Amino acid sequence: MTNPIQKKFADLATENAPGQEVRQAGTAAGSGLIGETLAGRPVDFSHGDVDAFLPSDGALETFVEGYRRGGSQAYTEYLGDASIRAGVAQRLGDFTGAALTSGEDLIITPGTQGALFLAMGATVTRGTKVAIVEPDYFANRKLVRFFDGVLVPIAMDYLDTQGRAGLNLDRLEAAFKDGAEVLVLSNPNNPTGVIYSPAEIDAIATLAGRYGATVIVDQLYSRLLYEGQAYTHLRATAMPRENLITIMGPSKTESLSGFRLGVAFGSEAIIERMAKLQAIVSLRAGGYSQAVLKLWLAEPEAWMAERIVKHQAIRDDLIAILRRIDGVRVRTPEAGSYLFPQLPKLTIGALDFVRALRLQAGVTVTPGTEFGPGSFQSIRFNYSQDHAAAVAAAERTVALIERYRAGA
Amino acid sequence: MTNPIQKKFADLATENAPGQEVRQAGTAAGSGLIGETLAGRPVDFSHGDVDAFLPSDGALETFVEGYRRGGSQAYTEYLGDASIRAGVAQRLGDFTGAALTSGEDLIITPGTQGALFLAMGATVTRGTKVAIVEPDYFANRKLVRFFDGVLVPIAMDYLDTQGRAGLNLDRLEAAFKDGAEVLVLSNPNNPTGVIYSPAEIDAIATLAGRYGATVIVDQLYSRLLYEGQAYTHLRATAMPRENLITIMGPSKTESLSGFRLGVAFGSEAIIERMAKLQAIVSLRAGGYSQAVLKLWLAEPEAWMAERIVKHQAIRDDLIAILRRIDGVRVRTPEAGSYLFPQLPKLTIGALDFVRALRLQAGVTVTPGTEFGPGSFQSIRFNYSQDHAAAVAAAERTVALIERYRAGA
Repeated sequence: MTNPIQKKFADLATENAPGQEVRQAGTAAGSGLIGETLAGRPVDFSHGDVDAFLPSDGALETFVEGYRRGGSQAYTEYLGDASIRAGVAQRLGDFTGAALTSGEDLIITPGTQGALFLAMGATVTRGTKVAIVEPDYFANRKLVRFFDGVLVPIAMDYLDTQGRAGLNLDRLEAAFKDGAEVLVLSNPNNPTGVIYSPAEIDAIATLAGRYGATVIVDQLYSRLLYEGQAYTHLRATAMPRENLITIMGPSKTESLSGFRLGVAFGSEAIIERMAKLQAIVSLRAGGYSQAVLKLWLAEPEAWMAERIVKHQAIRDDLIAILRRIDGVRVRTPEAGSYLFPQLPKLTIGALDFVRALRLQAGVTVTPGTEFGPGSFQSIRFNYSQDHAAAVAAAERTVALIERYRAGA
Repeated sequence: MTNPIQKKFADLATENAPGQEVRQAGTAAGSGLIGETLAGRPVDFSHGDVDAFLPSDGALETFVEGYRRGGSQAYTEYLGDASIRAGVAQRLGDFTGAALTSGEDLIITPGTQGALFLAMGATVTRGTKVAIVEPDYFANRKLVRFFDGVLVPIAMDYLDTQGRAGLNLDRLEAAFKDGAEVLVLSNPNNPTGVIYSPAEIDAIATLAGRYGATVIVDQLYSRLLYEGQAYTHLRATAMPRENLITIMGPSKTESLSGFRLGVAFGSEAIIERMAKLQAIVSLRAGGYSQAVLKLWLAEPEAWMAERIVKHQAIRDDLIAILRRIDGVRVRTPEAGSYLFPQLPKLTIGALDFVRALRLQAGVTVTPGTEFGPGSFQSIRFNYSQDHAAAVAAAERTVALIERYRAGA
């Protein structure tokens, strides 16, 4: 094999990606670790626990109905089943406060990851400058590299900016001026759980409009909003719709990740390219799984309200535990189930500490470096977990921070 | 949006791809068509009918068991669930006559399309010369273009070559000599149903070994072999295993397409890159769906035998109908359920005839141009259909060929 392909894939390392820790088994286990192992039920914070927060009621039954429908459900258009798409589009129009117009369309994808891949594949090619928020979802940066685009980082100063996400809007405008054609961002932000303020969303819309940039906004967690939080949908602003793709899916809040479902909607021209790409990537989202989307955005209100209350209670307990100790800096998540504390200076490197947490405390987290080069001192928790187990695991995490604290 | 991305996607047209005909509804229906509509039950030969040949027994139940297993089945490694992979690898080793070695691995993908996309994404980058058989599966050529590779066509003269596929081996060697680093082929060939002879497979293995080329062989239909046919697995030859990826899946013969499952196995280095790519494409094949692979390659022998007999009977009837009329040239498929007759000269263009078939005879086929520029005069049938409906549809096809025959 030639060097170019090996070089390309060197940028796509996954050994620290969520859920892939099992593949590190070959590493020498004890090297550099000090002290005893802490007893307790292991918790994998690298993704949500769908055994603690169960899939939406009726999901399996709806899948089975899809299966029994037979060939018409197995072989849908590449875009996805037309009637299911129409229903989801209607409900997403209501949810975002901006009905789909005649110049817009919707595609069903294998997970929101599938939507993100197709959206970036349909807008980024060799040399395309792409503005990427830091920190943000780790795949964003990898996708820019995979499609041979040029990464233009935009800092988000989330730690000292209550009431807004802290995106550096001057830097964003400079990027657009310098030729960035695409902006990718998650809102709520993954990994920090921060929501962009109305003023920030308006500024993004205005700047993207002014410079003709395409915006891909990943709103995967926009349904799980905590008490008192308001959310601004980019597609409900002055943002030109022909340059906007919104991504959503039922994998997180609704615990339906095992069905591999996501959607992207917006600019018809981009969705059309995404469908062409889907045709050579995986043909379509799983046919029978698509049926499960009939339930989505149509759950009982009480079900969603209870899910939010329960996540908020876990959030509050974890935040209180982390804030007890010196040197930990953390912003309270406003939505979703990610928590991204910045740790004090430790005697071991960040990746070694993540390994120590796993081996000595049974706590799996995702290292901050996955989310941007500036986040090496942070770790990400997905606290969509059993409440008591999460609290106990946070206590063990705090104990290990104290154990490895520099100068302690 | 810039021109480069529009140019890139112009090569990925899907409007004539299987199952996408519904999207052509806007086309003026009657233009250029002559004569009456032929009555009869519509048949969509663009893909198999999973209502005529049902999914493997127990598929749904195994999916439900996977769902009930919960989080561990929803969130597998990117490669796929380790124990399911081990079982499938064992059975594929038996099936191909070449057990997986320590330098090999297996990845579960969203359909065999997913396997093909990842395999080519892991081996083809800007400027990589890729040998592609013509005719062959339409995505092969599109994928070379998407990854900015250079397409090197290798003709397969299947019409006059009983006992072998008819691959031009001189042309293949010339391609390797000229720097082609990758060869992609389907065996049995899609769209012709031809099997490569042992001598041809040995020649491919020898040439690939001599020139250090990587081979991606799509064996999707290699289980459905008709009476008297023998099949040579490339991985059971002298082909260097570190340069070989074999693709299989349960979407066709086993009618499990609605679960979106495929596998690729072989070179550990390539599979590792494929897993990295899967991490940014769709994370993993649907978690619950992966459970269905537990049944695969472990079906009762009688079930497969019956499925083969029934397909063979349909094949024989369709071949007899097509051969009744002058000017149709067709090779009898040796495996799978594709039939690729070359039509006599017609008064309308090939794409117009395909449209006429759909609108005037209720017969949906895939135009030959999808499989290579030399196949414009051919159409592809997937005859995994209700037997009586397929025969009646073939009679209507023959009637339309006569109707539009040039010089008639």
